[in-house]
Amino acid sequence: MRVPRHIGIIPDGNRRWAKKSELQKEEGYDHGLDPGLRLLKAAQELGVQEITYYGFTVDNCKRPEKQVLAFQKACVDAVRLIEGENVDLYVIGNTESKFFPQELLPYTQRKQTVSAAPVRVNFLVNYGWEWDLRKGFGFLRSQSISRIDMIIRWGGMRRLSGFLPVQSVYADFFVVDEMWPDFQEEQFNRAILWYQKQDVTLGG
Amino acid sequence: MRVPRHIGIIPDGNRRWAKKSELQKEEGYDHGLDPGLRLLKAAQELGVQEITYYGFTVDNCKRPEKQVLAFQKACVDAVRLIEGENVDLYVIGNTESKFFPQELLPYTQRKQTVSAAPVRVNFLVNYGWEWDLRKGFGFLRSQSISRIDMIIRWGGMRRLSGFLPVQSVYADFFVVDEMWPDFQEEQFNRAILWYQKQDVTLGG
Repeated sequence: MRVPRHIGIIPDGNRRWAKKSELQKEEGYDHGLDPGLRLLKAAQELGVQEITYYGFTVDNCKRPEKQVLAFQKACVDAVRLIEGENVDLYVIGNTESKFFPQELLPYTQRKQTVSAAPVRVNFLVNYGWEWDLRKGFGFLRSQSISRIDMIIRWGGMRRLSGFLPVQSVYADFFVVDEMWPDFQEEQFNRAILWYQKQDVTLGG
Repeated sequence: MRVPRHIGIIPDGNRRWAKKSELQKEEGYDHGLDPGLRLLKAAQELGVQEITYYGFTVDNCKRPEKQVLAFQKACVDAVRLIEGENVDLYVIGNTESKFFPQELLPYTQRKQTVSAAPVRVNFLVNYGWEWDLRKGFGFLRSQSISRIDMIIRWGGMRRLSGFLPVQSVYADFFVVDEMWPDFQEEQFNRAILWYQKQDVTLGG
């Protein structure tokens, strides 16, 4: 079995799911927490070594305040939920902006856990691709995040939406049509099965 | 009709096509010239304003010499073929390496054509994403190339393979399973139809 070392997760479709479920748009994010934990466990079992979740971006913060508050809260809750697992947790994003949740500041220093074989989990929180690239000559602010082997995006859109442009240059991109709150392990397994048929050329 | 302003083209599958056609791998590239011209004409007719073709990359040059010579030649031929059209032609890539075809040096300065409504056509030749990003603080070597609305990749692979990471951050990504030498206008039309159903959020 070819296991991707590092998987990027774009958990899209929360607002569309809420609308479909006759909830207010901002009520969707809360329903993305449990999927995140279930995906982590499935990936861990498979032997994936690093997972990066697309939390929210600088761009996203242009949305109505109710939505911004809701996805900020969902990110804080997600980090706290995942923290209980055997993971090496890291939050990265623009901490100098008012949109960065202060509760997550302690997680922006990568700590080395001592437990056996922890999975690295990166959370992009108030992340911006321009912010990431503009540090200076040859540097990325996200440089402690490794190259990504596969990106899985929920919600049917076929685009990266600014997700780690440098780490994603060679990534295989799998799209799940279902919305993120409708996550099922079967969708993840489908992505992994598809990945078996891809070859790694690193552009060669 | 929603017309993408700028389309990126990843013309992959030339070697697999050659193998399938019982030719030598390096013989595939030559069969990608006519598709490139036909695609340009179809895009022009639709009102697309800018097209970027993925010629070859720094990474590609690690392949056997026969293949390298073949795709270098195909790029030179493609540029000469397209030059005859109503286009504003621009070649960009690492000209300081021995892999850059000297015949294409004159095209690395963007010239402004005087003809009516020319399409901008960019050719990435001996391009490398690292080379592009490493110029210095906040600069891209490819900065005269604009944001890409849609990327169409032939040959079934669902990855960017280092294609203009910054211009591609918000691009919608459409994959055609057929190999590039098997190009048909119908495939391009399929991509454009699909694009009608996408919304432009620019990450918002």
